[in-house]
Amino acid sequence: MKHNKAQELEVLEWLNTKQDISLEKLKGKIVLIYVFQMLCPACVAHSIPQSKKLFKRFLNEDIVILGLHSVFEHHDVMSPQALKVFVDENDIGFPIAIDLSVEKDFMPATMKKYNMQGTPTLLIIDKESKIRMHAFGLVNDLDIGLLLGKLLEEKKD
Amino acid sequence: MKHNKAQELEVLEWLNTKQDISLEKLKGKIVLIYVFQMLCPACVAHSIPQSKKLFKRFLNEDIVILGLHSVFEHHDVMSPQALKVFVDENDIGFPIAIDLSVEKDFMPATMKKYNMQGTPTLLIIDKESKIRMHAFGLVNDLDIGLLLGKLLEEKKD
Amino acid sequence: MKHNKAQELEVLEWLNTKQDISLEKLKGKIVLIYVFQMLCPACVAHSIPQSKKLFKRFLNEDIVILGLHSVFEHHDVMSPQALKVFVDENDIGFPIAIDLSVEKDFMPATMKKYNMQGTPTLLIIDKESKIRMHAFGLVNDLDIGLLLGKLLEEKKD
Amino acid sequence: MKHNKAQELEVLEWLNTKQDISLEKLKGKIVLIYVFQMLCPACVAHSIPQSKKLFKRFLNEDIVILGLHSVFEHHDVMSPQALKVFVDENDIGFPIAIDLSVEKDFMPATMKKYNMQGTPTLLIIDKESKIRMHAFGLVNDLDIGLLLGKLLEEKKD
Repeated sequence: MKHNKAQELEVLEWLNTKQDISLEKLKGKIVLIYVFQMLCPACVAHSIPQSKKLFKRFLNEDIVILGLHSVFEHHDVMSPQALKVFVDENDIGFPIAIDLSVEKDFMPATMKKYNMQGTPTLLIIDKESKIRMHAFGLVNDLDIGLLLGKLLEEKKD
Repeated sequence: MKHNKAQELEVLEWLNTKQDISLEKLKGKIVLIYVFQMLCPACVAHSIPQSKKLFKRFLNEDIVILGLHSVFEHHDVMSPQALKVFVDENDIGFPIAIDLSVEKDFMPATMKKYNMQGTPTLLIIDKESKIRMHAFGLVNDLDIGLLLGKLLEEKKD
Repeated sequence: MKHNKAQELEVLEWLNTKQDISLEKLKGKIVLIYVFQMLCPACVAHSIPQSKKLFKRFLNEDIVILGLHSVFEHHDVMSPQALKVFVDENDIGFPIAIDLSVEKDFMPATMKKYNMQGTPTLLIIDKESKIRMHAFGLVNDLDIGLLLGKLLEEKKD
Repeated sequence: MKHNKAQELEVLEWLNTKQDISLEKLKGKIVLIYVFQMLCPACVAHSIPQSKKLFKRFLNEDIVILGLHSVFEHHDVMSPQALKVFVDENDIGFPIAIDLSVEKDFMPATMKKYNMQGTPTLLIIDKESKIRMHAFGLVNDLDIGLLLGKLLEEKKD
């Protein structure tokens, strides 16, 4: 089985981090990217709580949790300013990238180049920067654990 | 025990209803008012799902479910326009009033005259338009049921 | 609407009470009877936790919670001795009656005279000893609250 | 890190399997053993549902789910006969071993030689028959997934 290399995120702005993050720099670590919209009910009910739980669980391990705010509708009310309030109110501690919108009412750049179907989407990237999960919808804890356990065990070439 | 009469809501605009609603016109019915902010996590996680469940459960009874969007912080990102997206995304079917803000960054008018502590707040008003519950925080289904059962049984004078 | 009077329970033995209980003696109080079998999965997963929650909630009110162990199958392994271990392990504090079995492998006497469909069954009896709920299966907290609120408000004639 | 080899189970009788099972014969597979007592509330509320979910999830993989009924108290009411009713009522499909009790009111043989603290206990055994998890109490899905993912990835020597 061949896995594609994860393309770099296209980011307007990073929250919750002093310096910009790139997948290139995270090589050697396992990366989970929670792609969400702040007004997407399934994201708020399921993905955000799960991402916060994983962030807390893996604080001291080589597993990095990131958020990606990919707004493809209602741009006016899911602005960076609104997102900052959302992140603060929901007490989210991990870095969040704002997906770059080239033109209003169009799919943002990262969502487009990854060909995502919508939100929530979960991307899991291995130590070699290869995409090992690209799932639209809800993913349960057991399946996330199974993949992370496997990826942690894999040797870097 | 004496219960105060519910003061009329101060409303900028109503959503999900063709004509404006007043507590005066609802006299004779039991009214539950879910006071919330769209970016308040406890509102989104608990109160909105509960209010939707009660709305569905009491559709054919003399129990009216209303929402009241009382924004007392971050007004810019919880605008009427943003609320409309929130209501639509969360598939909320009952009428929602936007609490009237006289000046930005101040407590809106209804929240102020009811002396509410924050969001979520649940108001339950009896057939005589008297306030029978004014609760800040989460209220469980059993306690709501107990009060509604009692109020349904009470005779109008 | 006319409600039938609750027939007296037929009891082999009472647990968790120093003296026998009769519905006659409980007249003036509201009585919830949780009818269960210790090896009925829905009873164990739903009804027992709910009954314990209600018992704690209504400790100081005129609402009495009782259990009725009505074994209609596998009598050998749901003996009074086994039930005592179950009650102890599950930390159930309210009185439990063992429904009287006249002959093995037959429906016990109270279950029979109430014409119950199986377990779990919930009976709710008003202050006048009349049956106001006889429900087979799971009943949610809201519906229990609605009925209890109504019954608490009703005047004794 | 050195892991001990899993000692063979001491079994009075197997349920849900036509032929006896030994860890020796399961070499090459990953084995989860849910150790429980049928009247242990935490087992019934958490471990049994989790074990059933994992059994269904891993039906077609080299992961085997087993139960071990290790009765160390109230032997009279948790007899093999009672267990059979419990297994049937709870619709448990995987093989269950009855831990061998040498004398009444003593810890059964497998529980003793594994030095278990009580029920529920979860044992996870790798393809080399080595014990990789021995946990008393509840284990969440994420942690089970992490270990299984790792064990699946490990090469047999």
